[in-house]
Amino acid sequence: MNLKQVAKDTAKVLSSYLTYQAVRIVLAQLSETNPPLAYWLNDFSDKESIQDGEAYLEKLLKEKQDLAFRVMTVREHLAEEVTDFLPEMVRASIQEANMEHRRQQLERLTQLTAIDPGSHPENSTDAD
Amino acid sequence: MNLKQVAKDTAKVLSSYLTYQAVRIVLAQLSETNPPLAYWLNDFSDKESIQDGEAYLEKLLKEKQDLAFRVMTVREHLAEEVTDFLPEMVRASIQEANMEHRRQQLERLTQLTAIDPGSHPENSTDAD
Repeated sequence: MNLKQVAKDTAKVLSSYLTYQAVRIVLAQLSETNPPLAYWLNDFSDKESIQDGEAYLEKLLKEKQDLAFRVMTVREHLAEEVTDFLPEMVRASIQEANMEHRRQQLERLTQLTAIDPGSHPENSTDAD
Repeated sequence: MNLKQVAKDTAKVLSSYLTYQAVRIVLAQLSETNPPLAYWLNDFSDKESIQDGEAYLEKLLKEKQDLAFRVMTVREHLAEEVTDFLPEMVRASIQEANMEHRRQQLERLTQLTAIDPGSHPENSTDAD
């Protein structure tokens, strides 16, 4: 288990996701202040995947530098404001989800046993 | 800009991504210890998208409980070992990438000016 590589890959995915969220924020702002530009950016983002945030920004810089700088500023702001909360949030959400999956699985198994008591020989004495 | 919602969405994406990484780790382990089971899990993961980690695990629990529990344990371990490093890594990588984009853009603009000095009137006195 190469934890260092997992951390590196995860940070890259996270950077690209925050770029996507930054584009969404700029889109929402533009739709209030400059609808034609919002339309343009929406169209551009449909064509150019944000899966790789850096490649997306590189193309946007060539088309509309100001918009690209704006997205870059917003994602830097998001990285500063949001990332510190993530470790605790992700740990808690995975722990809770795991617990919930285990609980549901136990419930499913209990129901199966209730439907088919014969599968548990120790119950057969009750049935006699 | 709803930072709370962005944090929540980002944590969800991160949980699913760590589930995907956990599946990859379990796959690598199985390919050493139990190749037929590795083949089965690979096939299952091709069919069931891990885009939504919880839906994926729910289906896996119904098919092969032990494998699902194993993935759940590994992703909990990843969340504990990896997430603490992410805030600093993501902030640094976004800052560096932004700086690099700005540098490249400046270089591009400088080259354009060098090719077409006429676009900067203050240069024309030198040309005379």
